[in-house]
Amino acid sequence: MSVIYDRVALIGLGLIAGSMSLAMREAGLAGEVVGYARSAETRATAEEIGLVDRVVATAAEAVQGADLVVLAVPVGAMAEVAQEIAPHLKPGATVTDVGSVKQAVITAVGPHLPENVHFIPGHPLAGTEHSGPRSGFASLFRNRWWLLTPEGEVDAAAIARLEDLVRGFGANTERMEPAHHDLVLAVTSHTPHLIAYTMVGVADHIKRVTEGEVIKYSAAGFRDFTRIAASDPTMWRDVFLQNKDAVLDILGRFTEELFVLQRAIRMGDGPHLHDYFTRTRAIRRGIIEAGQDTSAADFGRQAKPDSSET
Amino acid sequence: MSVIYDRVALIGLGLIAGSMSLAMREAGLAGEVVGYARSAETRATAEEIGLVDRVVATAAEAVQGADLVVLAVPVGAMAEVAQEIAPHLKPGATVTDVGSVKQAVITAVGPHLPENVHFIPGHPLAGTEHSGPRSGFASLFRNRWWLLTPEGEVDAAAIARLEDLVRGFGANTERMEPAHHDLVLAVTSHTPHLIAYTMVGVADHIKRVTEGEVIKYSAAGFRDFTRIAASDPTMWRDVFLQNKDAVLDILGRFTEELFVLQRAIRMGDGPHLHDYFTRTRAIRRGIIEAGQDTSAADFGRQAKPDSSET
Repeated sequence: MSVIYDRVALIGLGLIAGSMSLAMREAGLAGEVVGYARSAETRATAEEIGLVDRVVATAAEAVQGADLVVLAVPVGAMAEVAQEIAPHLKPGATVTDVGSVKQAVITAVGPHLPENVHFIPGHPLAGTEHSGPRSGFASLFRNRWWLLTPEGEVDAAAIARLEDLVRGFGANTERMEPAHHDLVLAVTSHTPHLIAYTMVGVADHIKRVTEGEVIKYSAAGFRDFTRIAASDPTMWRDVFLQNKDAVLDILGRFTEELFVLQRAIRMGDGPHLHDYFTRTRAIRRGIIEAGQDTSAADFGRQAKPDSSET
Repeated sequence: MSVIYDRVALIGLGLIAGSMSLAMREAGLAGEVVGYARSAETRATAEEIGLVDRVVATAAEAVQGADLVVLAVPVGAMAEVAQEIAPHLKPGATVTDVGSVKQAVITAVGPHLPENVHFIPGHPLAGTEHSGPRSGFASLFRNRWWLLTPEGEVDAAAIARLEDLVRGFGANTERMEPAHHDLVLAVTSHTPHLIAYTMVGVADHIKRVTEGEVIKYSAAGFRDFTRIAASDPTMWRDVFLQNKDAVLDILGRFTEELFVLQRAIRMGDGPHLHDYFTRTRAIRRGIIEAGQDTSAADFGRQAKPDSSET
């Protein structure tokens, strides 16, 4: 593939930015990748492992001459970064972000940017429970969705160019209204994360009673929750604070639904439970058919010659 | 390894029984494995794929002359099966089960069994989201826990012999009080399953609004819930009905905890959220150190050369 941006500036050097750098390199999509992280330790690690072509000491320096600037910091830190880089942006540059919430980022970043740059908010639906500069890998975005939420009159060519880049990572891309994005993600990501965090927290209290048995016997379902609940605390704090309305809406629906099932258990209503569990099973099938997960049993954690389902 | 039981009868031919048969064969632990399932279709499939040495048409026939009888049916079906097989059990035989709830199984099965058999309830903490006679595989129990909950004066040699069998599958084994088992499992398995079912149910309602986007964009966390919520509906209906008290207790704690986090989101209490998420992250580390899950990012679903965490 050919170079899409001569110079790319990554602000933040965690899982997403690191993976972008490795993917850009692997596919030759950028002339030069410049990276900045607020933490000196992160910058030193990035330097040591050669995560980007050049590590610089300030965000302002990173964006100088950059054709693409990627804000890859927790959502709560976006406003400050935008303010800091704004005076140093190259005219005609594209500014994007990788935040998990879009309306709040637009509100935080948009007002700071000059008129002569293209602001195209984005969100790659990809990640792992790991974080930090050593956690990235080039294939992270393969077959994953990368949503873009440009608003108003953004230059069509600038959008198309950014789409070329993310497709170069192997990702699929789609445009979406920011508010709609925030609602969909509240369902597919934010609320599930909060629930996983909660369940792991409950177990943590019980653990003190049962002396480590919860961890010892975690394979029965709980460990999947702990994986989700091992995600970066700062990132997730910001997600919940910045997508408050949608998360509270979905949480309300969740609690209602949970109470109905809880009541069915208390009342011994077997048919209700069976019907409910049959319906949810069908959704899993949909996800596998949509190519968004493996049909291998237990995520392929265990070797199995034949994964056919009956 | 040498033969531990000359004849083993499997009542039920789903994921667990099928995996036991394959594991017994692989390690030569049983002289003959006889299998029975209520569904004619399941029996035909078991016959077709040679899941056991001999498929028979009734539970009574299956247990005749068997040294070990394994009840591998949903918890709600245990009483009926126990009643049916009781008059046909070989004196001195061991009867065990693989149900996810232990007190209810003991109440359902115990009274039916004659005095001259050894009743040793058991529960392998292993499984996948798949079910049925085609879903088993010999390595399912490797490095997993197999809990035994014998009560009163059960013959020590009979317990030791059953422990030899499950260790022959590669499992670790431990003895536990039935009530304690049911509480621990309510935390590590039953409540997480109910929550996953609930979240997937909520998404199913929303899906109608968002036209499949929930499935399309599921990679962000939700798909892990759908895997859990794809588990066998009959088995899980019975688990919740039969471990009602412990599940309702843990659900109560869960809801309290969720409301505290929900309030923190509403009030914008960032420090509370950050502290909570930091604590839950540590639990994940404990599970990986205990060897109960992989440290590979995203369960190893995605290839990654270096899975070191920062």
